[in-house]
Amino acid sequence: MIYNKNLKIAGRPLECIILILLMLCTSSANAQPTKEDSVAVKSIFSKSLDDQKGWENLRYLSKNIGARINGSPQLQRAIEWAKAELSHMQLEKVYLQPVMVPHWERGGKEYAAIHVKDSTLSLSVCALGGSVATNGYLKAKVVEIKSWEELKALSKKEVSGKYVFFNRAMDPTDAESFNAYLKAVDQRAIGAIEAAKKGAIGALIRSLTLSIHDYPHTGAMQYNDKVNKIPSAALSTNSADLLSSLLKSSPDLEIGLKMTCATFPDTVSYNVIGEISGSQYSDEIITVGAHIDSWDLSESASDNGSGVVQAIEAIRILSHMKTKPLRTIRAVIYTDEEQSATGGLTYAEEAKRLKERHIACIESDAGGFVPVGFRMSGDSAALASLKDMMGLFAPYNCSGIEHDPRGVDIAPMREQAKAIISLDCSDHRFFNIHHSALDTMDKLNKREINLGTGAMTSLVYLISKYGL
Amino acid sequence: MIYNKNLKIAGRPLECIILILLMLCTSSANAQPTKEDSVAVKSIFSKSLDDQKGWENLRYLSKNIGARINGSPQLQRAIEWAKAELSHMQLEKVYLQPVMVPHWERGGKEYAAIHVKDSTLSLSVCALGGSVATNGYLKAKVVEIKSWEELKALSKKEVSGKYVFFNRAMDPTDAESFNAYLKAVDQRAIGAIEAAKKGAIGALIRSLTLSIHDYPHTGAMQYNDKVNKIPSAALSTNSADLLSSLLKSSPDLEIGLKMTCATFPDTVSYNVIGEISGSQYSDEIITVGAHIDSWDLSESASDNGSGVVQAIEAIRILSHMKTKPLRTIRAVIYTDEEQSATGGLTYAEEAKRLKERHIACIESDAGGFVPVGFRMSGDSAALASLKDMMGLFAPYNCSGIEHDPRGVDIAPMREQAKAIISLDCSDHRFFNIHHSALDTMDKLNKREINLGTGAMTSLVYLISKYGL
Repeated sequence: MIYNKNLKIAGRPLECIILILLMLCTSSANAQPTKEDSVAVKSIFSKSLDDQKGWENLRYLSKNIGARINGSPQLQRAIEWAKAELSHMQLEKVYLQPVMVPHWERGGKEYAAIHVKDSTLSLSVCALGGSVATNGYLKAKVVEIKSWEELKALSKKEVSGKYVFFNRAMDPTDAESFNAYLKAVDQRAIGAIEAAKKGAIGALIRSLTLSIHDYPHTGAMQYNDKVNKIPSAALSTNSADLLSSLLKSSPDLEIGLKMTCATFPDTVSYNVIGEISGSQYSDEIITVGAHIDSWDLSESASDNGSGVVQAIEAIRILSHMKTKPLRTIRAVIYTDEEQSATGGLTYAEEAKRLKERHIACIESDAGGFVPVGFRMSGDSAALASLKDMMGLFAPYNCSGIEHDPRGVDIAPMREQAKAIISLDCSDHRFFNIHHSALDTMDKLNKREINLGTGAMTSLVYLISKYGL
Repeated sequence: MIYNKNLKIAGRPLECIILILLMLCTSSANAQPTKEDSVAVKSIFSKSLDDQKGWENLRYLSKNIGARINGSPQLQRAIEWAKAELSHMQLEKVYLQPVMVPHWERGGKEYAAIHVKDSTLSLSVCALGGSVATNGYLKAKVVEIKSWEELKALSKKEVSGKYVFFNRAMDPTDAESFNAYLKAVDQRAIGAIEAAKKGAIGALIRSLTLSIHDYPHTGAMQYNDKVNKIPSAALSTNSADLLSSLLKSSPDLEIGLKMTCATFPDTVSYNVIGEISGSQYSDEIITVGAHIDSWDLSESASDNGSGVVQAIEAIRILSHMKTKPLRTIRAVIYTDEEQSATGGLTYAEEAKRLKERHIACIESDAGGFVPVGFRMSGDSAALASLKDMMGLFAPYNCSGIEHDPRGVDIAPMREQAKAIISLDCSDHRFFNIHHSALDTMDKLNKREINLGTGAMTSLVYLISKYGL
């Protein structure tokens, strides 16, 4: 739909009626994909599939810069690199938006072991992001729980002075890996709080992955100021299975854990923003983005190097089109998605303060695998228009529509934008590598990433043409 | 639809009419998915997603047996292993169906080099399957062509005594990698024939992959008895690019090639067949299959270890269901798909000779990546029923329907079966590894393979219940 809120209907009744009728006709005609749109989308997908730059950029970001955790020089280098990439495109505006972000460091490599009878069996372990350190080698007994009910049923005496071992596995029978993750992530998020309430001295979380392997998967965790802050670590699934199995025969075994992680004062970081001004409705903004920060255990090619290069290629392709987009397009490369989402929050606060009008905020943060469609939320008119557009994506097998967008960075724009939209990708490979040392570029596929670029770029193009 | 061709309508007119009416009601009601079907399909997908055996079998087939080319002891071992796997399930019948297959061997590792000025630059090369040897180190000039028209335009004199270098790349802008493959595979298939017609002494084919790397991709090629049989080899895409680039500045450079491959007399191999007899319509057969032979450059986990373990798990899951299937179900593990499709041809000939009634022949040979749906051909009633069933696959993101099934082994059943159906998978990763040393298990994902098993098993279950 071509739609402009600022249009004032004034004048004689007949003119008014004709204008309204014309608007209605235009709306319904334009909301349906035209042959011209189909040609434009095909051209965008062809350019994306033939793109070399995104894959080269992913290699640079992954191999030359590497892990990009808050507070690290690598994150700052990545931000400067992204700004330079956008600057080379001769967009109307390229700028940094300062964001205060939490700063946590892992310290030395963690060590954990099971002490059972006369044996010491080492475990694969890593601190969860934000955890406090152990203050030396912290040795204690363990209580394994597989549900919140089990924890609730235990007395303080039974838990006090022990580790609580949260060993509820992701459900392998859930056809959607992301759902299985969402059903299990509460353990990582609030395990330390709930364990501490019962007097535990530490929380051990089964890694959130459907793979059975030796790689611990980190991720964000929370503390509550009213509750003692206890160390919280992820065990690899193999280590979790070993511990669970040994606890059956030796319930009095002990775990030793050493972590030297620490939290420092908040530090300044930046969202990177590049903008093409719309030729007709420059006050209507469409964003296409991804987060550039990462965890520290790998080069983080999938989460979210893939999304960053897709967003950069999207605005590059749009900036090279013959005709300028009708609406303003912004690439937004967010900082600090992984720890406290201050990048997305700051962007939304600034948009509100400046009274900006956002039509759609689009994000890629689903791992960079085969794109299958989009996840959307918004007002009903916007969703209807988006559904009409999706027909154009069928030839590329990414016309699926789901609710509940999964982009953390776009979520704060839910009230301000007509729609927030996340690229939806096949998720079976994602949770094998997510937040672990396995998130490296060899797990990704250039064509899958390029198809995602094509899908995002095409959607921005269509929304820029028709509005929502 | 519950449908049985053998049903005789006899008796008084009223009974006859009621029977016909009942049949019609049952047909239309059953063609639509019921809640019960949805529960059954969910249960099958859950079992498939939780399955460990298929992945273990894939490891055994890939790592303990390895490459399974016609005439190799590994192919025979794989066939015996598959028979043993089916025999453990206590099916009604498990048997081998003898098939005479071509027997070609690669011989020693091939060697190729560019001789330009005083330099010798080695190339990554492999013989195409079925090629003759070079009879020593065969050195000659090269003519590069990118279209059949270019070859046609050359005189015999311009080609005679030279290599023809077929360097038409797969089209990266085609959103479907398989289409890009189909548009380029003619070079590999008939390149040697067309080059020999012009007097060439050898054919060099750019590997059929969208990756730019150092791995040559083999595959089947043809000769024509009326034309001189010349050696035919695949160059890696990197080597093809190097050669093409050097030919621009040094058109008189020479290529040397040594291949010691040889063809031996046809040998006996076997299709492996396991059968569950239908409880009501035992004369109506549904097959679920995959080919067990492979090329020789890798363990061939994707092409087609993945399909073999999916077909075996499909019949395992069906054999464990509480109620016996109404129709007969056969797992068919075909031999010799890669070279001359004699496995599928023999199966079809035997089915015809025995006057068997095949309802559907289903195959998995699309690489074992994320399943997206099925490709089908058949009569219009069968296709309509299959389309109705597809709604049940939407929760697993594999409800897509395309025409032109891609299973080579089921193609000979096109006239005899009501429908032939191939599992359709995301194909972007497939052609990176297809027929090359890269086709190893680390490229595959257990959940993606298990989802494919779920899709095939569910489809067999539904066709067994309703017919087509």
